[in-house]
Amino acid sequence: MTAYDDQNIFAKILRGEIPSFKVYEDDDTLCFMDIMPRTDGHCLVIPKTPCRNVLDATDAQLASVMATVKKVANAAKAAFEADGITLQQFNETAGGQEVFHLHFHIHPRHTGVAMRAPGQMGDMDAIKRHAEAIAAALD
Amino acid sequence: MTAYDDQNIFAKILRGEIPSFKVYEDDDTLCFMDIMPRTDGHCLVIPKTPCRNVLDATDAQLASVMATVKKVANAAKAAFEADGITLQQFNETAGGQEVFHLHFHIHPRHTGVAMRAPGQMGDMDAIKRHAEAIAAALD
Repeated sequence: MTAYDDQNIFAKILRGEIPSFKVYEDDDTLCFMDIMPRTDGHCLVIPKTPCRNVLDATDAQLASVMATVKKVANAAKAAFEADGITLQQFNETAGGQEVFHLHFHIHPRHTGVAMRAPGQMGDMDAIKRHAEAIAAALD
Repeated sequence: MTAYDDQNIFAKILRGEIPSFKVYEDDDTLCFMDIMPRTDGHCLVIPKTPCRNVLDATDAQLASVMATVKKVANAAKAAFEADGITLQQFNETAGGQEVFHLHFHIHPRHTGVAMRAPGQMGDMDAIKRHAEAIAAALD
């Protein structure tokens, strides 16, 4: 297992060194928007403490992250009047991982609508509105 | 939220009414092979108690399932000398869900090897060997 590198972009977001569109935060976890959204409402949940991915996470990190995933998934489903939610979680490059701080992808889904291809930068105004819509549904 | 239907095939596996290739079991969770494997070693982790998916799961169900996912993912990575692990988890039909008992898909991944298309029945002898290989790596 490669060691955790605290220069990854999610570590920088956690330290406030680069901005993000925040959806939700508690003592242990943070949820913010993916800026290359494959669905409207595509957001990420991460632990505030360092770990690379599921393979080296503690049970406590996984439990707190999943509690937030559940909370945000229900809010995103409501905010987007979605028919379902797809979760993805990637471990190591061969598993699809690009940022090496544990994260779960949450995708609101609508019947018959495919996910967009990865790697395309989104519209920042739309992403900001989507973050606000999910946050409002959490209240 | 649609109610839990205890006639789903994973509920039948839990009751021993239909067979499965078991990988791991503890008080709260069961891991067994997907018989339509999209990767060699494709297996599923489920809670032993009923819930439909992440949207209605309790925090305790999610915590115990993720502890098992982590354990099995590391074992599968070792057993298949995999370079990474991809996790998928589907909620409701629009989210990709086909069996309505909470489950996480674990996929061992190798650099440059794509996942196979879904919906293709696997070779039962190979799946049995793969279950045994992951179980051996858990010890």
